[in-house]
Amino acid sequence: MSQATNQSWGGRFSEPTDAFVERFTASVTFDQRLAHQDIQGSIAHATMLARVGVLSNDERDAIVAGLNEIRAEIERGEFNWSVPLEDVHMNIEARLTEKIGVTGKKLHTGRSRNDQVATDIRLYLRDAIDGVEAELIRLRDGMVALAEREADTIMPGFTHLQTAQPVTFGHHLLAWQEMLARDHDRLLDCRRRMNVLPLGSAALAGTTYPIDRHVTAELLGFERPAENSLDAVSDRDFAIEFASFASILLMHMSRMSEELVLWSSAQFDFIDLPDRFCTGSSIMPQKKNPDVPELVRGKTGRVYGHLMSLLTLMKSQPLAYNKDNQEDKEPLFDTVTTVLDCLKAFADMVPAVEPKKANMFEAARQGFSTATDLADYLVRKGVAFRDAHDIVGQSVAYGLQQEKDLSEMTLDELKRFSEVIEPDVFDVLTLEGSVAARNHIGGTAPDQVRAAASRARAALADIKAST
Amino acid sequence: MSQATNQSWGGRFSEPTDAFVERFTASVTFDQRLAHQDIQGSIAHATMLARVGVLSNDERDAIVAGLNEIRAEIERGEFNWSVPLEDVHMNIEARLTEKIGVTGKKLHTGRSRNDQVATDIRLYLRDAIDGVEAELIRLRDGMVALAEREADTIMPGFTHLQTAQPVTFGHHLLAWQEMLARDHDRLLDCRRRMNVLPLGSAALAGTTYPIDRHVTAELLGFERPAENSLDAVSDRDFAIEFASFASILLMHMSRMSEELVLWSSAQFDFIDLPDRFCTGSSIMPQKKNPDVPELVRGKTGRVYGHLMSLLTLMKSQPLAYNKDNQEDKEPLFDTVTTVLDCLKAFADMVPAVEPKKANMFEAARQGFSTATDLADYLVRKGVAFRDAHDIVGQSVAYGLQQEKDLSEMTLDELKRFSEVIEPDVFDVLTLEGSVAARNHIGGTAPDQVRAAASRARAALADIKAST
Amino acid sequence: MSQATNQSWGGRFSEPTDAFVERFTASVTFDQRLAHQDIQGSIAHATMLARVGVLSNDERDAIVAGLNEIRAEIERGEFNWSVPLEDVHMNIEARLTEKIGVTGKKLHTGRSRNDQVATDIRLYLRDAIDGVEAELIRLRDGMVALAEREADTIMPGFTHLQTAQPVTFGHHLLAWQEMLARDHDRLLDCRRRMNVLPLGSAALAGTTYPIDRHVTAELLGFERPAENSLDAVSDRDFAIEFASFASILLMHMSRMSEELVLWSSAQFDFIDLPDRFCTGSSIMPQKKNPDVPELVRGKTGRVYGHLMSLLTLMKSQPLAYNKDNQEDKEPLFDTVTTVLDCLKAFADMVPAVEPKKANMFEAARQGFSTATDLADYLVRKGVAFRDAHDIVGQSVAYGLQQEKDLSEMTLDELKRFSEVIEPDVFDVLTLEGSVAARNHIGGTAPDQVRAAASRARAALADIKAST
Amino acid sequence: MSQATNQSWGGRFSEPTDAFVERFTASVTFDQRLAHQDIQGSIAHATMLARVGVLSNDERDAIVAGLNEIRAEIERGEFNWSVPLEDVHMNIEARLTEKIGVTGKKLHTGRSRNDQVATDIRLYLRDAIDGVEAELIRLRDGMVALAEREADTIMPGFTHLQTAQPVTFGHHLLAWQEMLARDHDRLLDCRRRMNVLPLGSAALAGTTYPIDRHVTAELLGFERPAENSLDAVSDRDFAIEFASFASILLMHMSRMSEELVLWSSAQFDFIDLPDRFCTGSSIMPQKKNPDVPELVRGKTGRVYGHLMSLLTLMKSQPLAYNKDNQEDKEPLFDTVTTVLDCLKAFADMVPAVEPKKANMFEAARQGFSTATDLADYLVRKGVAFRDAHDIVGQSVAYGLQQEKDLSEMTLDELKRFSEVIEPDVFDVLTLEGSVAARNHIGGTAPDQVRAAASRARAALADIKAST
Repeated sequence: MSQATNQSWGGRFSEPTDAFVERFTASVTFDQRLAHQDIQGSIAHATMLARVGVLSNDERDAIVAGLNEIRAEIERGEFNWSVPLEDVHMNIEARLTEKIGVTGKKLHTGRSRNDQVATDIRLYLRDAIDGVEAELIRLRDGMVALAEREADTIMPGFTHLQTAQPVTFGHHLLAWQEMLARDHDRLLDCRRRMNVLPLGSAALAGTTYPIDRHVTAELLGFERPAENSLDAVSDRDFAIEFASFASILLMHMSRMSEELVLWSSAQFDFIDLPDRFCTGSSIMPQKKNPDVPELVRGKTGRVYGHLMSLLTLMKSQPLAYNKDNQEDKEPLFDTVTTVLDCLKAFADMVPAVEPKKANMFEAARQGFSTATDLADYLVRKGVAFRDAHDIVGQSVAYGLQQEKDLSEMTLDELKRFSEVIEPDVFDVLTLEGSVAARNHIGGTAPDQVRAAASRARAALADIKAST
Repeated sequence: MSQATNQSWGGRFSEPTDAFVERFTASVTFDQRLAHQDIQGSIAHATMLARVGVLSNDERDAIVAGLNEIRAEIERGEFNWSVPLEDVHMNIEARLTEKIGVTGKKLHTGRSRNDQVATDIRLYLRDAIDGVEAELIRLRDGMVALAEREADTIMPGFTHLQTAQPVTFGHHLLAWQEMLARDHDRLLDCRRRMNVLPLGSAALAGTTYPIDRHVTAELLGFERPAENSLDAVSDRDFAIEFASFASILLMHMSRMSEELVLWSSAQFDFIDLPDRFCTGSSIMPQKKNPDVPELVRGKTGRVYGHLMSLLTLMKSQPLAYNKDNQEDKEPLFDTVTTVLDCLKAFADMVPAVEPKKANMFEAARQGFSTATDLADYLVRKGVAFRDAHDIVGQSVAYGLQQEKDLSEMTLDELKRFSEVIEPDVFDVLTLEGSVAARNHIGGTAPDQVRAAASRARAALADIKAST
Repeated sequence: MSQATNQSWGGRFSEPTDAFVERFTASVTFDQRLAHQDIQGSIAHATMLARVGVLSNDERDAIVAGLNEIRAEIERGEFNWSVPLEDVHMNIEARLTEKIGVTGKKLHTGRSRNDQVATDIRLYLRDAIDGVEAELIRLRDGMVALAEREADTIMPGFTHLQTAQPVTFGHHLLAWQEMLARDHDRLLDCRRRMNVLPLGSAALAGTTYPIDRHVTAELLGFERPAENSLDAVSDRDFAIEFASFASILLMHMSRMSEELVLWSSAQFDFIDLPDRFCTGSSIMPQKKNPDVPELVRGKTGRVYGHLMSLLTLMKSQPLAYNKDNQEDKEPLFDTVTTVLDCLKAFADMVPAVEPKKANMFEAARQGFSTATDLADYLVRKGVAFRDAHDIVGQSVAYGLQQEKDLSEMTLDELKRFSEVIEPDVFDVLTLEGSVAARNHIGGTAPDQVRAAASRARAALADIKAST
Repeated sequence: MSQATNQSWGGRFSEPTDAFVERFTASVTFDQRLAHQDIQGSIAHATMLARVGVLSNDERDAIVAGLNEIRAEIERGEFNWSVPLEDVHMNIEARLTEKIGVTGKKLHTGRSRNDQVATDIRLYLRDAIDGVEAELIRLRDGMVALAEREADTIMPGFTHLQTAQPVTFGHHLLAWQEMLARDHDRLLDCRRRMNVLPLGSAALAGTTYPIDRHVTAELLGFERPAENSLDAVSDRDFAIEFASFASILLMHMSRMSEELVLWSSAQFDFIDLPDRFCTGSSIMPQKKNPDVPELVRGKTGRVYGHLMSLLTLMKSQPLAYNKDNQEDKEPLFDTVTTVLDCLKAFADMVPAVEPKKANMFEAARQGFSTATDLADYLVRKGVAFRDAHDIVGQSVAYGLQQEKDLSEMTLDELKRFSEVIEPDVFDVLTLEGSVAARNHIGGTAPDQVRAAASRARAALADIKAST
């Protein structure tokens, strides 16, 4: 370690830091991503210190001007990041002192790197959440629009990946949209809960300067100062909560991806993904691979891993700050990047998904998908549901033997299984009749799908209006 | 599989289920825990069916009476759970039909086990959340009271487990309380988000019966029906979100536990845990072990594991219901039990923790814990903070050599490092002066601790009033 | 806590254990599963103590006889497990003293519960591993036999779930078998590494009695005594390593399950799963669901969760034994049960899987699966591979437009893309020709599949011979 | 996508890849780390192709020369990595063709990127394992040496972080060393198991060229070709197994770190960490923080996260290669880097740890650490162990009241609790007597520690000799 680095804390040390240790413990290679927020926080801190008389207005002005110059240097890519200066904070402070002299050394009055980094990272995450929300809204908008367009498109609904009952493609898309609506709700809860100011907690106990944390909170757009200094410097809940939001979101996207991959297969052949979202093979000339959904599905692991990493990190740490916490940043940064990329990819791709309606319809016609409708028909004719289920089960067994769907049987064949069956049975055995009959809130009937899409659009409009 | 089980779905099958498979796939051994909620849901379903005319009032009454008898049988431990009947739902339905005949077979009209189990588990979790909240409030109440009592008790504050600055024990306890306040907030968010009704989604697409889901929702205390049937039967977000809440809570409790264990060690000796919360050794007669915090710390892994289990479970599942989802129950049940037990243990134990004030005070007197106060003193005398830090660093190095704390040095000794030091320096070097000087919101000053405790008590009162 | 429990460690305690704490900290509800191993270990310990003169032969005989009686009581279900006696060890020791008087109190000489439980759980896991291995061998045997039978059955091979190249079903089954072979290898490594004796480590430091740990190790079938007492009582690597083995195994089984579920769908329709491995729906009479593979896929989460639970548990624990470690048992027990059940289900089911050969073949005929063969053909005619790839890519684009597979084009059509194409091209465009041409170790040619199956059978025979 | 990228697979595509998708799906930003191994694999592949006559010797020579030039360009930092060229493989191949013309297009004959990347990553991991092993050996060597030096240094042994029995510091260090010995063993198992050749599997089914995979395996130092092509291109067990090894290793290091942090605290004060492994505080001038062990402890989460990431990634993937697998690299690379750094940091630091022997000894004298010795003494005088335990428990209770350790009581005081106590009791109540008495394999007696260190050194020598 060069003598230079001793400036910030080396007074009591009798030997320089080991060269490998210096690199091993430094965070500047990744925490420089917080430079903008670090400067933003320092400007607010200096402004507050001047407001309460700890700095003069001239000192504040010099600091603010110096920091703005540094920000410009960073943006221009001209800033020299130094590993011996450990982290983003010391790098910027050292440069400030280079620029404005002894006044630069006053900036760290009444704060510590512990509350400084906690502030930086909350500012960063708040910005990130706002960016994530924008992509999430774009994706939800696209899904609702596609759902509305495909409200009448019939496809097989699956349970256990077996044909279950016909549904509409619009209904399926709105199922996806509901997942995202919950994710959105969780994201906003996370934002609200994290939006409190750690600055002023100093190292762990607060500071002896007459600071006004309400001023700093207001300058930085936080709702309030954090209530407890020990907690504020050691709390990383916000990172875990964001990773938890992200894990559930990616889980949802992995389910959508799985379906997109299935539907793109030759066996399902339900959709066409535009070539621009696919890639080919270096060896097999015929291949067109659904890379985007596959990769999103793969990235689920990445985000789950980061959640586990952060939970493990914080387990059993005594208060207050420990060096372990430096490990909070990379998983958080990568989670943000991953979520943004995956949402962007889907927001671009989903509206371009082209259903192959004839294939979907034909698939829904197979697999006795209207068997439940027949059972319900029998119930309406007075048969108890369990008995009706059994009757239909026998007619399906017959159909399997004869290779005939229910709708392909004659009335005589059907009547073998129950005398109550009349010619009107054929109305309930059509796919259109089947989906239209599920006509209640949450059901797959096209009218319900349109109504649900309309409600979803209104809910999105409310959210956009409020942010 | 006995013929009996074929009643519910066996019509199309040509051979009975393999005996091992029957046991392997059955869930009744663990989902019988949902019996109460299953009956509650069935009564609401039958009531709604009668309201819309699908059942007659007599049929409804017979079903309700039968279900109430079954509930009593279960409570008396007289119910025979049958593995061939697979799950709690079929067991209860089969018993109902035994009791009331063919009307029992009508109960399953317009629903499926898919929406039934989704409803049961949400009812279960809602009850569980309410129980968890009660214990959480009890623990928070106890912590706030203890914090208030110990607002003036001085102890060393640590960073990196090194003596950093003096804090008060009350302040430390309120740091714990802040963690729990966030957990509480997350718990209520989870409750709000999960409190929607899946019933009426039937297998996956809704039903052809003229059901009124708003009625069912109201009867069961849900805020609204779920918006989409495909989503409602395949959504397990609530379980993951609860496990995520629980993971962060247990992470917090692992940190408290770690500190309780440290403080109980001979080396720290900061607290006394009453004998009733400890156990001994089978071989070492002198041992008194802090079992409760150790075990809570250990249970952190259990809850993290359940979170990971649920996230893995849902990854890449195509819609809608798949058998995989049966695996959601055991992790959720065990998470609930674990959280309840750990909170109860802490709510009992924390108020009984006895601080050894003299030991805490003596520990805070060591390790140059008022070094920052000296630096701040120098700043008030006009030295720039970074220079002040360096001056104090040198005086600490001197103190280490001479084995003297800063407060034990003479004025002459101190003046060697800076001429601006005057006799008033000794005021800032006392522990009492140090803590009292951190007198702003979030700071460790006893007055601030009392004010924070008061705010926390008011916030808790608001929550209690609203639930 | 009743006075009775004080017998083992209560001498220094001034108040009884809190009733809830007693239940919360007790392990007997789950560790009674170790009763057999606990008795086995105690008999070996007593035998060794007599061998070195710490017990008389009469004392040893009394102890051994008493323990054998207790074992019989447990097997007959007549043993009264007591929660105040905390764990399996104290329950059995207390009962022994009841039976044989003061001599029973001598059994615990030279050991502690710390080394006792570490010994019990290793004995348990060793037994469990042997049971797991038996099922794994049965499954591998079944897979190899099926692969051999289906060495000529052609199906499409997929990458990105897109048709890639034709393969044989036997080749695909041997891919599964290779995964299991690695799992098997890991299982045996785990067994070897865990098979060392902790007993004699006592609480943490060894004991003052003249014990002979080599004797105990030999009596219990361990390879050697553990080298370090502090490590031996705090090591739980074996549980983590087993959970890691199990996680990879279940990951493999989740992949097989995914494929079985896909192949059972109406869209793929590649296989028939016998009815006895499937179940139906309570609402949809036509359903036949592949429950077994779905459930196995779901159980993957369970095992991953246990691995994470154990890793979290051990993180940051100072030596030696801490109460946290009590939490090692339930995840390990459940991992063992899950692995055994899943292997058994697959060992029963896989040999009964019935391929629908015509469907497989027809699917392989589509999707230009022999495009690579055409490219390779061009290379053999002197075209560089990258150029050949491009030529075939253009012919596929043409085929997509014309809805013609490569083998359905005329020679003239093919020659449009390359003049070097001659009539012999049609040989390489057949599925049989395509698979037969991949005729090297690891390739899909039927002869290679048969040779690989034969090598796998020989490897399994070697393993069986050595255990 | 630029036209250039179409060269490898674009023949059948009708529109270029979306610009964002191109970046999102490209791996070259991180897989360029495999450049060396990619070239190594390509040279072996070309060599084999020439050996079997698919390439001429001239072609082979041109390819090898070209690749060697490219390797030099990369080493000189002059290689232009192109995102549109997707990955390391295409980048290098495109450059080769630029350099040597059409012959470069022949390199990809008989292979695919699927088997190519699987080969590259195994070569990478094998190199990484060898590097990890070197650091692990260095750390184990240092620990054994330190243990031998401190074989007689007495410290308190803890269970539940309560003083349990005296042990020697050397014994404690050997407990750490045992953990690492198991890790080492697992590492070598992982290496052995992964050292098989995927190349020749081509896309998934093998290739139609007359390749000789045994030749390639030998050229690349693999033990044998992988047995099954479908498995070989989709298998990522080696990455998971390495992450599992790393997770257990880091768990062990987190335990060592926890102890180093505890021992560095003012309360324990057992060791001195040289200044060069510590850093200071930006606000508290007196601080000297044990950053290295704290950071290693924190990195445990990182590695656990990567393990979970990889397990999640592979869950439920159908065969063979899917794009998801691209996500295997970053977690693996970061795991390797983390393990290397943490081992290096410890290998440097551990030998420099300076025990404060007087403090350790004094701590061991407290907390009735020889209570078990007194119980054992009573047993040797004929008291049954359980009764002896109870007698000592009472004497400890008396000692707590009187604030006297057992060794500080008079004979009369001791005889109050048991008449069999004689003057010779004081021999067993010394710390030296206590540790010396645990004189069996695995025990803490200094002679045993020396013998164990000697065995460990011999085992290490064997390993070094064999690799």
